[in-house]
This record gives sequence, structure tokens and C-alpha cells, in this order.
Amino acid sequence: MKDSMEERLTRRDVIIGAGKVVAGAALLSSIGVISGAKNAEAYSYATDFKYKKLNPHEVGQIAYENYFKRWCASSVIAGLVTPLKKKVGGAWKGFPIDAYRAFHGGLAGWGTLCGCLSGAAIVIGLSTRDTDTAESMINDLAFYYSYTELPSFTPAKILKAQIHNMTVAGTPVCHVSVGKWMRLEGVAFLSKERAERCARLSANIVMESARMLNEYAANGKYRAKHKLLYNVLSNGITSQNNCADCHGQNPPSPNKTYNTLKK
Amino acid sequence: MKDSMEERLTRRDVIIGAGKVVAGAALLSSIGVISGAKNAEAYSYATDFKYKKLNPHEVGQIAYENYFKRWCASSVIAGLVTPLKKKVGGAWKGFPIDAYRAFHGGLAGWGTLCGCLSGAAIVIGLSTRDTDTAESMINDLAFYYSYTELPSFTPAKILKAQIHNMTVAGTPVCHVSVGKWMRLEGVAFLSKERAERCARLSANIVMESARMLNEYAANGKYRAKHKLLYNVLSNGITSQNNCADCHGQNPPSPNKTYNTLKK
Repeated sequence: MKDSMEERLTRRDVIIGAGKVVAGAALLSSIGVISGAKNAEAYSYATDFKYKKLNPHEVGQIAYENYFKRWCASSVIAGLVTPLKKKVGGAWKGFPIDAYRAFHGGLAGWGTLCGCLSGAAIVIGLSTRDTDTAESMINDLAFYYSYTELPSFTPAKILKAQIHNMTVAGTPVCHVSVGKWMRLEGVAFLSKERAERCARLSANIVMESARMLNEYAANGKYRAKHKLLYNVLSNGITSQNNCADCHGQNPPSPNKTYNTLKK
Repeated sequence: MKDSMEERLTRRDVIIGAGKVVAGAALLSSIGVISGAKNAEAYSYATDFKYKKLNPHEVGQIAYENYFKRWCASSVIAGLVTPLKKKVGGAWKGFPIDAYRAFHGGLAGWGTLCGCLSGAAIVIGLSTRDTDTAESMINDLAFYYSYTELPSFTPAKILKAQIHNMTVAGTPVCHVSVGKWMRLEGVAFLSKERAERCARLSANIVMESARMLNEYAANGKYRAKHKLLYNVLSNGITSQNNCADCHGQNPPSPNKTYNTLKK
């Protein structure tokens, strides 16, 4: 790579603009990074899993109810796969929903990628047929997760606790997402309220996933809302657009914040 | 939850000590958080996927070679599943390795959970039979990833570039892990050297996964090296033990660091 970062960034629209495959894209893709819409790195793959249109509110309610046993990742999977087992059957029939439970809490409680998104990404990848469609949907879902006031889902019956706040996470990272909500709600992680919040968030994420997959099922394609690898190309590294959440004075002191929350 | 954080933390050994199921564990598990060894929240699940002992170096080499097309997550999956398709067949036969490619770069380039770990967690969850075994292995793998000098894998033939450094990530987060390595190596994200590093890292992670799964296949069980949910119980939130990487003065300025790396 002899090109400067600036040269690469000015080529961004050419590189990842819909339907355009140019030398710049080939150059970048040759080093194993870029998967722009219809670029040279994208390819189709075979999967036995077929998707049929689902009712978003129904899948949300299933995920919400499953959460208190299966937690985030497997609950989002349950929301989609439980009705697919009935409506489609086939490869979904023996699908082990609980095999993915350890994605909870940002992978076994490590606070990285929110398990809702891991669960959704697994079913989206299985239900689509090419790398760009899957990644476009998952990328859009990460944008939705990061920049929407959540959780907005209202359960048919509240199973764990009343909660009062929604927050904009600014990130798909569990630790930051749940931490911001805990600070506003004034509750600790090991509280019924926090569990209720994550159950409702699981519902929101699976509902948005169903909406996207429904569009794909109806039209045979999915129209991406956001450019692929926007963050990588903007920041020159795998990243998000909430830099000050970690770089700078913005991060709250963990001792001051979390240890004073009501239990 | 009327208990203080301190009360909960002093109960930690009782709560997650191997084989102990006590009132404290039941209390915590009732709010949807704890999955300690053999605690009340753990359960078995059925999966059609069977694992047989694999050669760690062989799976590492497969992952390394796959990286330059499939990237981290699907390459780790390819390392395990390619030989399992031959040695075991069955449910692995039609396994869509590429359906998980969008986990690359911390989910579609968002820099969260390293895709190597997502890929490994998927195969580990499918190959085990209860939530505690899967989570113990995945938790240990996150410790290995975070606290080992990597990448140490030496490919049979270097496919992309010579690289010179290993780093201790301190985290399973893609952005921090790759950023620390880039800073030491002095290269940008969109460089051949960075791709080479991630290919070798994929090899290391799949090799460690195979070692753990081999132990499970040989003994019918897996002996956890680290306690489950150590980070949640230590810090009172889903988290890691690298707090100063984000909270404090430690994070490098993104502009100063990444934009001055050689391209």
C-alpha cells in the first residue's frame, strides 16, 4: 500500500458506491478489507436455511419472554427461529437455539458486542445468500442499535420490573450501551430493572431484524440504508463513531458511577 | 435486589465455586445474570453437531490460508469445520461457513468483538452439549486471546507479508487489539502487514479452540481454567479487566496515532 490514508478516503464513494467496481476497490480488496456493495470481494454462498415473512411484534414478544432463561443472543435467535421451525421447518427444525447462549453480555459477560446483535447476525447470515446482503443487513442493524432510543418495546405483560428510561447507546458495545442506560435509570447491573431492559432491547432488535428479512423475502433483495465499512473508511481502523466514549474525558469513572447505583 | 455490591462480591466464591449451588446463586440467577459452574441457571441442550479430535496445527494452517478470502470469523470456522466435514460428516456436511463472514472486524468493521472469537464461539457452542461447558470454553478462549502474546503462529508459507511483532491485547475487542499491534508494528489498518497479522491470529485462536474441544472429546468434559462471569462480578457490569484502555488517559489520540502510521 503506497497510497496515503487521505488518497484512500477521497476514493471512498468510488470504492463503495452501489454497483461500482473499480481499480481502487480491487486494490483495497486485495488486502482483505473491503466488502463494498457488489465489489470484487463479495460472493454468494449456499445455505439450507430458508426464511419466510414473520410478524415483527410476535417475534419481539417471543424474544422478550425467552430472555429470562436464555438471555440476549439466544432469545433473539428464539424470536426468529421458533416461528421458522413451524412455518418453514426443514433445516430450522433441529436448530440448537441454546448453542449460542454464551454470546450473552458481550460474549460470556466480557461486555463486547451486544448479544442481541450476535444472535441476529447468526440468523441473518443463515437466511441470506451472499456476503454483501448479509453484511448490509447486519451493518444497518448495528446503526439501528446504536442510534435509536431503546428499548421502546412494550411487552404484553411485564415479566420482571417497571422501567422508565430509553437511551441512545451510540455503539453496539454491551458495556457502554447497558452502562449508559444504568446511569440514567439509576440501577445496578445485577438488578431486575436491568434484566427487564435487556429483555425489551432483545425484542426491539429481533423486530428490526424481522423487518429487514421480510423485505428480503418479499423482494428477493435488501436495500442497504448505510454504506458498508463506513466506520473503517472514516476512521482508518475497525471502529465506531463514538470515539469520545473511550478517547478523552467522557468515560465516567467506573468506581464513582457504578458503585453508587442503587441495588 | 436489596444486597449491596460488596455483599454480593464477598459471596463470589460461594456463588460460582465449582459444584456449589446455594441461595446466593439462586438469588443472582433469578435476575438473569449468573451462569456459574453447575449453577441453577445452567442447562443441557440438544445439537446434531458432533466433534472429533482434530490436529491443532492443521486447523491453524487452514484458517490462515482462508483468511485472505473469508476474513477472521469464517476462517476460524473453516479451520474447524473443513476437517469435521470429512472426519464426522453428518450435520457438518452442509454447514454454511460463509454465513458468518459479517462477524469480521468486530461485526462488519464496527471494531467490537474480534471475529476470531465469534467464529470459535459458534463452533464451540454447536460442539458441546450444555451451557456451562460452552461458556467455560469460550470464556477461557477470551482470556487466552486477551492475555497471550499474539500472533505466534508461523505459516508453512507466508502468503501476504513479513511481520515482526506480537502484542498482548488485554481485551477481546478488535479495535483495541488490532490498534495496539498496529502501533507497535508501525503499519496502518489497510496494509498487507495488518491482514497478515489477523490471518495468523485466526490461526492461533482456532488452534486453542481445537485444543479445548479435543480435551472435551477425549474426556467427555472440559475443565475450566477461569471462573465464569469473573468480569461481571469483579466490576459490577459486563466488562473486561483493561479499564484504563478506555477510562483515563491511556487511550491514544486517534488522530495522532493512526493517521501517522506508515501506509
